[in-house]
Amino acid sequence: MLSRTARALLADAPAIAGVHFRAEACSYHPDLCPDGYLNLGTAENRLVWELLAERLAGRPPLAERHSRYAPLHGTEELRHRVSGLLSRLTGQPLDAEQLVVVSGASAALDAVASALCDPGDAIVVPAPYYGPFDSDLAGRSGAELLPARTDTGTGLPEAVDRALERARRTGATVRAVALTSPCNPTGEVYPAETLEELLAVAAAHRVEVIADEVYAGTVFGRTAFASLAGRPGVHQVWGFAKDFGLPGLKVATVHTTDPELASAVRAFAHFAPVATDTQAMLSWLLSDVLWTDAFLAENRRRLAASYSAAAGLLDAHGIPYAPAGAGLSIWADLEPWLPTGDWGGERVLWQRLFERARISLTPGEVFHAARPGRFRLCHSLDPAVVKEALTRLAEHLGEPHRL
Amino acid sequence: MLSRTARALLADAPAIAGVHFRAEACSYHPDLCPDGYLNLGTAENRLVWELLAERLAGRPPLAERHSRYAPLHGTEELRHRVSGLLSRLTGQPLDAEQLVVVSGASAALDAVASALCDPGDAIVVPAPYYGPFDSDLAGRSGAELLPARTDTGTGLPEAVDRALERARRTGATVRAVALTSPCNPTGEVYPAETLEELLAVAAAHRVEVIADEVYAGTVFGRTAFASLAGRPGVHQVWGFAKDFGLPGLKVATVHTTDPELASAVRAFAHFAPVATDTQAMLSWLLSDVLWTDAFLAENRRRLAASYSAAAGLLDAHGIPYAPAGAGLSIWADLEPWLPTGDWGGERVLWQRLFERARISLTPGEVFHAARPGRFRLCHSLDPAVVKEALTRLAEHLGEPHRL
Repeated sequence: MLSRTARALLADAPAIAGVHFRAEACSYHPDLCPDGYLNLGTAENRLVWELLAERLAGRPPLAERHSRYAPLHGTEELRHRVSGLLSRLTGQPLDAEQLVVVSGASAALDAVASALCDPGDAIVVPAPYYGPFDSDLAGRSGAELLPARTDTGTGLPEAVDRALERARRTGATVRAVALTSPCNPTGEVYPAETLEELLAVAAAHRVEVIADEVYAGTVFGRTAFASLAGRPGVHQVWGFAKDFGLPGLKVATVHTTDPELASAVRAFAHFAPVATDTQAMLSWLLSDVLWTDAFLAENRRRLAASYSAAAGLLDAHGIPYAPAGAGLSIWADLEPWLPTGDWGGERVLWQRLFERARISLTPGEVFHAARPGRFRLCHSLDPAVVKEALTRLAEHLGEPHRL
Repeated sequence: MLSRTARALLADAPAIAGVHFRAEACSYHPDLCPDGYLNLGTAENRLVWELLAERLAGRPPLAERHSRYAPLHGTEELRHRVSGLLSRLTGQPLDAEQLVVVSGASAALDAVASALCDPGDAIVVPAPYYGPFDSDLAGRSGAELLPARTDTGTGLPEAVDRALERARRTGATVRAVALTSPCNPTGEVYPAETLEELLAVAAAHRVEVIADEVYAGTVFGRTAFASLAGRPGVHQVWGFAKDFGLPGLKVATVHTTDPELASAVRAFAHFAPVATDTQAMLSWLLSDVLWTDAFLAENRRRLAASYSAAAGLLDAHGIPYAPAGAGLSIWADLEPWLPTGDWGGERVLWQRLFERARISLTPGEVFHAARPGRFRLCHSLDPAVVKEALTRLAEHLGEPHRL
């Protein structure tokens, strides 16, 4: 008999991981495997590997000191390097002593949520939202996520305010608002004023803000990125997965100016440490500030080109989408092609695209979209793969069913 | 305001980590820093680094596939390599599909305990026991640890049986017995018959067994190591910290034949993944089976020599200790030198040894010893450091106070 937490985690296991590995096990190649899967379902940044490979070839070997015990909340060196990087990315001077390193963004989100919430407490989450928030923020903490709908014409601060009001009326103990900024899945970059209003709403309701800024370095659109890091009551999560295209390394950070919360996150970090070896590699990677900033600029340039190419193909095929200013994906609107207008219809279309067209996309239901029919398409891949995928997608969709 | 779990974790933070870093920041060197600390308080195996450095120099560079997402419970390759290694170490054929890789033994213990226990459930732990069990097994799960005294003349199975009986009478819901085997801190290797009896006791009381076998490869004494891995109801924890002297890498595994528990541990592993890069390095390290087995044999030989030298010094100075057959440490009896016979006296002696003699040892109170006066001395260091430390110890102790 498993614990309640274990049963809840298993009942709520994210479905996308399984599909990812199935698609990757048999992936498309124009000559070798033309019938393979085109995986646009995983937000991996595959546009910058050759830049990293070149730089990492000079990585120092494992040193004896890296074989030994180190502080479990991150080495001083890596925290120092990341605080420098994040200070440049966010425009806020962030103190290395306020940073905690943990093994991946899931662990980071869990640490913050578990430090803030007792089982039954609530976290308001603007929706649509990154689906794995369900397990990352709630799976171990026992918190309940309360969606604040922003995809029905309501602005972010108003939606959050309404959700907090509603929660207050129902007697829920809300501890925080959690959001991805820039937004995953839509790629929206929130204007500074919007975020200021959000902070005011959170302060008025006396709730903390969990700002998942793992896409901080991917902003390529006209709206400038405004970070929430360093503000009172804000706990920022960042990592190497998106901005550096290194999701396999499972390295993320939590920044907070709240010393009590920092202590608690350090205590949770004890259960999710990063290998000193990996920390040494990343410290070394970031030690060349000029290289790092040039890399991030080139990454943004490639993401912008990749986004434009994908958006152009969608335009050419008459497939609507939400304009994005950041991230690795496009939030496309396939509602006109749903066989039925309900969530079942979305699942049927997703399944057909996967099985027949051999394209892996992520359906909007995973992101708690307001209406069926939205799909997240990741474009930060070989442009030929994206082109083949979107061509197949258009062929498969054909004429809209329900226009 | 922090969550209950966060407050409990902070209240129960292990003290030894702070002392470790203080001692390491100013460590003894015969010429450069003769007044530095001699750190015999940390169970680090520093006897084998040059063997590892030589082999790891040939480590392949980071490959693109290692930069990407991988299964969060461990790559197939590392699980395959570790299952081969553990099958040889334990004499039991262990299936790679039944292994879960997580970032360190603390995460492994937490995953098993949190999968089994709801808050308020109990785990019986033979005492003296590895002090961080308090946070690793109970900190996040909310379980209560019930010590079963084995250092007052009662054998292991009887002590556990009594503790389980007592728990039953008080209405506690005991979910498991957890032990380190070989024992940390005593270095005792439990005979196969003893462990069989323990399994029978656990089965009779219908509780699971959490077998922390991180010292499996350190057995150098006459009693052969008998692993509990692969037995029904046993959940084995292992890692690279002790047997390979690589505590900085934070790589541990859970093995269980129980598919339901394995699923749950995989779900918890989501929050404590290991970098694919580190997994690739360790897979490569283990890929040469002849090298690995020769390394482990040499490690055992060096540990035996290190133990004999340290035990010889204690004998020469008339300091009693429990004979060890495994591990990195000696469980010494400084009770005759306590200024007072209570736990306060132990703390005073510990403090004096640290501040005046500049020797870091770990006091028995940390391990929930039955009586004050036991200290764990780690000997798996430069023999000159161990000799200097034990000479200083004897000088500082002088004549017994209370004989």
